[in-house]
Amino acid sequence: MSEKRFLSADIATMEQRYRAAFMNSLSGVKSANLIGTSQGRHVNENLAIISSVVHIGANPPLLGMIMRPHTVVRDTLENIQQTGVYTINHVSSEWTEAAHQTSASYPSNVSEFDATGLTSWYADDFDAPFVQASPVKLAMQLAEIIPIKLNNTQLVIGEISSVWIDTNAITAEGQVNLDQLGVAAITGLDTYHTINPVGRYAYAKP
Amino acid sequence: MSEKRFLSADIATMEQRYRAAFMNSLSGVKSANLIGTSQGRHVNENLAIISSVVHIGANPPLLGMIMRPHTVVRDTLENIQQTGVYTINHVSSEWTEAAHQTSASYPSNVSEFDATGLTSWYADDFDAPFVQASPVKLAMQLAEIIPIKLNNTQLVIGEISSVWIDTNAITAEGQVNLDQLGVAAITGLDTYHTINPVGRYAYAKP
Repeated sequence: MSEKRFLSADIATMEQRYRAAFMNSLSGVKSANLIGTSQGRHVNENLAIISSVVHIGANPPLLGMIMRPHTVVRDTLENIQQTGVYTINHVSSEWTEAAHQTSASYPSNVSEFDATGLTSWYADDFDAPFVQASPVKLAMQLAEIIPIKLNNTQLVIGEISSVWIDTNAITAEGQVNLDQLGVAAITGLDTYHTINPVGRYAYAKP
Repeated sequence: MSEKRFLSADIATMEQRYRAAFMNSLSGVKSANLIGTSQGRHVNENLAIISSVVHIGANPPLLGMIMRPHTVVRDTLENIQQTGVYTINHVSSEWTEAAHQTSASYPSNVSEFDATGLTSWYADDFDAPFVQASPVKLAMQLAEIIPIKLNNTQLVIGEISSVWIDTNAITAEGQVNLDQLGVAAITGLDTYHTINPVGRYAYAKP
């Protein structure tokens, strides 16, 4: 064990990609989600891997994600703003390489579904594309985009309008066994993991 | 496989705790972090488990977390607002039960360090308490609290001022091997996991 202290000045002077990898590790284990958007059913579909989806609240059912405009997610952000809808698809540990490949900077007219071999799927009444193979599919309605002026990012908040999930993975208490569904986790920028339960605890009381 | 569609109306009519467990599962795998605060060195220490820490940006080094005022985290929030500092401590898979126990609603004058047996540690120049046993310790300076009016929660953003970490777990590219450090992940409200790498991929190009 050789624990070392890094000061903010050390972080500031790291080479840019090294710092990105280091900093992206420090929030801990992250969710692996693919954001599906389009400009209408089957029109200019877009798919982007993201590791910043965060629970905002259960009632109303809200999820947030941190996005940086003018980067590789620009098409995703523009589609969300124009159509008001998007999908969140949990990544399976069986196809993490295809999921990761969506992070490449494809031209706007290239569908990351086509480029990575992930098949899109549409619900009858929802115009953004899902990842057919995803074990947890969420239909999202844009609720609010909150600017984070500190670093020109945005907190994009959506309300869940539908969920597709295997009911066998839902416990009697309502929890979803994501390990049973093979859902992947991300650490840092590029490393994907399976998860293995080590403890489930009762509602804690003093 | 019995995939079922849940509509927002189905979620709205779920029993409250069932809905909380279900909804807290839908963002995917989450980080397990303990937030350390106090009202000065060794004064009214507080420790709270949280699963909403999210990467905001690498330069400046910013992390966010979603908090709901007037709940079990009220002491944590008040301490952060009063002192402007807090710590983020990654939870180890070896002591998840103690970490989970911090979620109990203890009176304000009870230290969750004392109540759960987790030992506090202070840096010479930083007045918020760390969890001594934590494999990744972050000293945080409050940067901004952004209200989320949709459901009266807050996005608390802090800047990392120091990091304590075992340098043996840092790769040549700057990524931290959180699995090697035994860092735990959370799903839902109460289930803790270890992580196992299944793939690390190069920077993706079209």
